[in-house]
Amino acid sequence: MKCTRCKKIAAVALPSHNAGFCPECFKVFFSRQVEKAIKERTLFSKEDRILIALSGGKDSLALARELHLLGYNTAGLYIDLAIPGSSETARDHVERFCRDLGISLHVLEMEKEGMPIPEVRKKFNRPVCSVCGRIKRYYFNRFALDNGFSVLATGHNLDDEAARLFSNVMRWDVSYLGSQGPDLPAEQGFVRKVKPLYRLSEFETANYSFLAGIDYCYAPCPYSKGASFTYYKYLLDELEHEQPGRKISFYEGFLNRGRQAFDHIDQEGGEKPGPCPRCGYPTTGDICGVCRIREVMHR
Amino acid sequence: MKCTRCKKIAAVALPSHNAGFCPECFKVFFSRQVEKAIKERTLFSKEDRILIALSGGKDSLALARELHLLGYNTAGLYIDLAIPGSSETARDHVERFCRDLGISLHVLEMEKEGMPIPEVRKKFNRPVCSVCGRIKRYYFNRFALDNGFSVLATGHNLDDEAARLFSNVMRWDVSYLGSQGPDLPAEQGFVRKVKPLYRLSEFETANYSFLAGIDYCYAPCPYSKGASFTYYKYLLDELEHEQPGRKISFYEGFLNRGRQAFDHIDQEGGEKPGPCPRCGYPTTGDICGVCRIREVMHR
Repeated sequence: MKCTRCKKIAAVALPSHNAGFCPECFKVFFSRQVEKAIKERTLFSKEDRILIALSGGKDSLALARELHLLGYNTAGLYIDLAIPGSSETARDHVERFCRDLGISLHVLEMEKEGMPIPEVRKKFNRPVCSVCGRIKRYYFNRFALDNGFSVLATGHNLDDEAARLFSNVMRWDVSYLGSQGPDLPAEQGFVRKVKPLYRLSEFETANYSFLAGIDYCYAPCPYSKGASFTYYKYLLDELEHEQPGRKISFYEGFLNRGRQAFDHIDQEGGEKPGPCPRCGYPTTGDICGVCRIREVMHR
Repeated sequence: MKCTRCKKIAAVALPSHNAGFCPECFKVFFSRQVEKAIKERTLFSKEDRILIALSGGKDSLALARELHLLGYNTAGLYIDLAIPGSSETARDHVERFCRDLGISLHVLEMEKEGMPIPEVRKKFNRPVCSVCGRIKRYYFNRFALDNGFSVLATGHNLDDEAARLFSNVMRWDVSYLGSQGPDLPAEQGFVRKVKPLYRLSEFETANYSFLAGIDYCYAPCPYSKGASFTYYKYLLDELEHEQPGRKISFYEGFLNRGRQAFDHIDQEGGEKPGPCPRCGYPTTGDICGVCRIREVMHR
């Protein structure tokens, strides 16, 4: 197979794009897909101050590298969860990566915030992933708002997004369907959230990270029972194999035609959130979810 | 495994209902699912005159038997497509079935209408299935309207419906999504259309037909390249195996929460159909699709 762009020997075959690329041209392809996502969904501009949520994994580092090379005004935020044998390694990867590329990096330590995840885990009976996810979303959002960032960018890829959409459709969860996408606008108390890798599959971000020589963190979180939506990702991979391009057309079809159908439903249902009396974070309860976690931790 | 109802030995296991049934109780279960569908979606009442589209296959005969036993006012319509080695056999099955149960049967012969399918097939370059489907829908609808039936019932089962929904969702075909369901209301020129087997899987209708001793026609149409949505049915079967009950919850979730989202989109888009100047059937073109086929046949 020859490279679709330069006719050298291809290293990456992409049936979904009916194309194949050599290592150099694959990076160009990757870059153009990111640019296309940014332009088509008007995710942000060169004027924006973009905070990138960095975990140390391939997706978030690939995103940071690409936005940096494209000349956007970026900074990274790593949240140190204090998980033994995991957080320190990931932090090392992130710190080295940012130093090498000259990306400014901020670190928030959950130990200092009074909620190191191992302690949180001991206090809650349910799986810690949802609690941990809530804490991370809270701090990423709050840090962005408190420090004047106009956008928070995360490394969610096409597989993440398509699997989440698939899950929402299987349950016809219309309120989630109304508010899913790579371009969630700012709302009272919430920074604008974007996912510039939504056009790129996990296979593609893995290839990019490898070919770009990104030294990312492979190890999954020791508390996680595997990636979320694993089974739906498997099903969508089967479908993609049978119908190349289906994953992106399913997701983009939703963005272009499906999502608007759920807009008005989303607005009709549910209470409008007000500010948490303790921290100001938007909540529909008495206090917000993270202040509640904080309360449990102090018991 | 014991029968969930009578505690005898179960013959049919239904993980989706977390139940198992002996042959007699399975038929009761089947019957109750049909009644539940009729009631929950107010498909029809004892006052309605119901025309049942009969193909001779397991689904349509199971439907006819069940509606007849439940005391509804039914008649069958068989459309003889004049396909050699197929139509005659199917017609025999249907005629014997209706005679045995005392269901009144009507037969329309496409030969007499000037469009035997083998001739239609010769005149068209594209696969005949879509043309044949169009002809059948036309005559089922027209026969119902011309003969004072208030409802047309078809034997589509849960697998058919879930696969069609899945296909529409994969393409985010919002106009089809707005008008899919087991309860399509009457519109100008269209009789009310219902699918009382929508809660029952193909496995369940096959079991019912076997246990009820229905002598149905096994052979697929010789012109068909296999059932429609075959691959989606396979994927949904995998999903059902992993998450028992997912198929019905996906389909009912759509009916209860999803479908309404597409209502207004459906009405916004597309022209309102007017009557075909030749036959009066609703169409958005100069003449309707079947009159166009008729025209091609006369060339």
